[in-house]
Amino acid sequence: MDQTVILKNVRPWGESATDVVIREGRIAEVGPATAMVEAQSIDGGGAILLPGLVEAHTHLDKTLYGMPWNRNSVPSNLVAKITNERNSKKRIGLDPARQSARQVALSVGHGTTHIRSHVDVDTEHGLAGVHGVMATREKYADVVDIEIVAFPQSGMLIRQGTKELMDEALSVGADVVGGLDPCSMDLDPKGHLDVVFALAEKHGKPIDIHLHEPGELGIFTTRLIIERTRAHAMAGKVTISHAFCLGHNDYLAIGRLLEQLAETGIAIMTTGPADYACPPLIRTLDAGVTVCSGSDGIRDCWGPYGNADMLERAVFLGMRNDLDRDDDILRAVEVVTTGGATVLGLEGYGVKVGDMADLVLIDGETLTEAVVSRRPRPLVMKRGKVVARDGAPLFTTE
Amino acid sequence: MDQTVILKNVRPWGESATDVVIREGRIAEVGPATAMVEAQSIDGGGAILLPGLVEAHTHLDKTLYGMPWNRNSVPSNLVAKITNERNSKKRIGLDPARQSARQVALSVGHGTTHIRSHVDVDTEHGLAGVHGVMATREKYADVVDIEIVAFPQSGMLIRQGTKELMDEALSVGADVVGGLDPCSMDLDPKGHLDVVFALAEKHGKPIDIHLHEPGELGIFTTRLIIERTRAHAMAGKVTISHAFCLGHNDYLAIGRLLEQLAETGIAIMTTGPADYACPPLIRTLDAGVTVCSGSDGIRDCWGPYGNADMLERAVFLGMRNDLDRDDDILRAVEVVTTGGATVLGLEGYGVKVGDMADLVLIDGETLTEAVVSRRPRPLVMKRGKVVARDGAPLFTTE
Repeated sequence: MDQTVILKNVRPWGESATDVVIREGRIAEVGPATAMVEAQSIDGGGAILLPGLVEAHTHLDKTLYGMPWNRNSVPSNLVAKITNERNSKKRIGLDPARQSARQVALSVGHGTTHIRSHVDVDTEHGLAGVHGVMATREKYADVVDIEIVAFPQSGMLIRQGTKELMDEALSVGADVVGGLDPCSMDLDPKGHLDVVFALAEKHGKPIDIHLHEPGELGIFTTRLIIERTRAHAMAGKVTISHAFCLGHNDYLAIGRLLEQLAETGIAIMTTGPADYACPPLIRTLDAGVTVCSGSDGIRDCWGPYGNADMLERAVFLGMRNDLDRDDDILRAVEVVTTGGATVLGLEGYGVKVGDMADLVLIDGETLTEAVVSRRPRPLVMKRGKVVARDGAPLFTTE
Repeated sequence: MDQTVILKNVRPWGESATDVVIREGRIAEVGPATAMVEAQSIDGGGAILLPGLVEAHTHLDKTLYGMPWNRNSVPSNLVAKITNERNSKKRIGLDPARQSARQVALSVGHGTTHIRSHVDVDTEHGLAGVHGVMATREKYADVVDIEIVAFPQSGMLIRQGTKELMDEALSVGADVVGGLDPCSMDLDPKGHLDVVFALAEKHGKPIDIHLHEPGELGIFTTRLIIERTRAHAMAGKVTISHAFCLGHNDYLAIGRLLEQLAETGIAIMTTGPADYACPPLIRTLDAGVTVCSGSDGIRDCWGPYGNADMLERAVFLGMRNDLDRDDDILRAVEVVTTGGATVLGLEGYGVKVGDMADLVLIDGETLTEAVVSRRPRPLVMKRGKVVARDGAPLFTTE
């Protein structure tokens, strides 16, 4: 039987200090705890207690983290980057199982307990990425939950056979149907979206579409996604990742679009990119749209940035959106916690009695101070078991 | 007499490992060093050696670092923020000497050896800020060089008496004449710039003007600054900070402006802000314009961000400007090192024989890897003396 754990002197969401009793992987009590025989007591030192951070958009299969430095000299355009990556993987010896495990260690060390990862599916590498991340998902099931999006990174229709591979990926273990720039990648928005929604219907799985298409073009594609979400009765089951078009400078058009996204329960994932127009965070949240965030690619063939720290991501969201007020910055924290949990459909996410004991402690005077300071996390817990301390995972990877 | 120091096994700018011999605060030799009696030997452990990082734009007098958390609920507009700050300083007990020292400790811990700080001069607080930062400059002269810009944060002409205070600040110890949004703050660009350039001429000092004015307005003001720089023969002695207008979406107009900035030797300071249009980094450098960078305000009445790490700033410059290639990211490193050194007019800046021994060691496989990883700096040296180790300063502040 699982041992009872008492997490003493912690501040849920930065509020007053209290104790949290954990039994069988869930929060059993919140309040002053008396010493219990047989219980393991952990001193929280007055740290802030949050539910585990949610990494809602990354690419576990592609990180080069821990491999010899990859000198990047690729031109800065999407297709050049996609082509370079597809052609480089074998040459540089990118092993999706080994690499995804390395990123998991990095993520968990920073307090992430749930990850949604897009994983490349293409006719050159087949399902190698999916099988690799599935192996990691199984091997590290005790430290993190991983959701796999079958992702047609090199296009769905322009490379024959991809559709069939996507279908197979969803049969063998992928959880979500991915898509990519229906207009600018496949040059056939109707064809692309018909395949995506048909796969979702066939497998009964949700959708998460990468949409980099800017301005009016992205707005057009978003309208097509909204229309199909309604037609397929998939409210609450569709996410648009990036949605750069929501940063388009047309206040009224964006207002109408946000209204429809809220109505159809389509969620938005934004990384808060500094170099692209992107969804205005507070406006999007105020419109009633669920927003989550993620690291996107971490030190991969695309670029060298990223460290899998979702608190740093909250800082990026804040800096991108001119959020200086404490209450605004807490909205960014909401995005990397409850926003992600909503998109991933997590049950029992939070720090209340009955919630899953997926938890992270964060040092700081106030929650905002803790976020902007991004100190190493004193403790991370998955289903009541300590999985990281002082910023470092308590498990090893290859 | 100063002791000889041998810094063994370091990689200048990430190149091959070598040794560096330091005598009398300067680099005396670069190359394999034999053991010397009387010499102190420091093992560099193969770390990358850079000249000390240059913080070319910050506000030492205003940081709240180390004070109780200041909950921010100020509306997001420039005048509201300026007014709130001016009215808050006394209430919250902001002591410019104490606070600037705290930020110095933070900066030096991250490897900064030179700082240009704008310091508020206004009719409410007079020269309190300038005297405070001057006290810090004197007290910490052995660990960092500080240049003070007399900065009319609340306007030059709209608050009578400011001009005289600026004059006094430059007489008692400020090194640079500051300015602020000649159109949008003072509503009198000619009047504002006439005062700035007259003060520079009277005191024989350089100029650094905050210019947040966007688009066409900022382009207009930039033209006025270019014209006066020519008329006053101040080539190489004028900096425009922020210059958001260079991010204006008019390719040809910006090209013409960059050409004139290069011709008149006007430097640009950009923080790489994620939430404003800003100078395109590579294009500006390629035009032959000197570019430096800085943290701007760190955890102050304006906002909570910032940690004084100029390597993190290089990452922000990279992310803002879509720099993924190694050679592009090294341009951002150039900005936080030699670019800043050029703007501050530093003599003997570098890691060659004869250069000042203002140095920082950085852990990393390659220089790019070191920058994106931003690990704690193993060692920081000022004029040949070790001033910080493992990310922490070796001196204390109040």
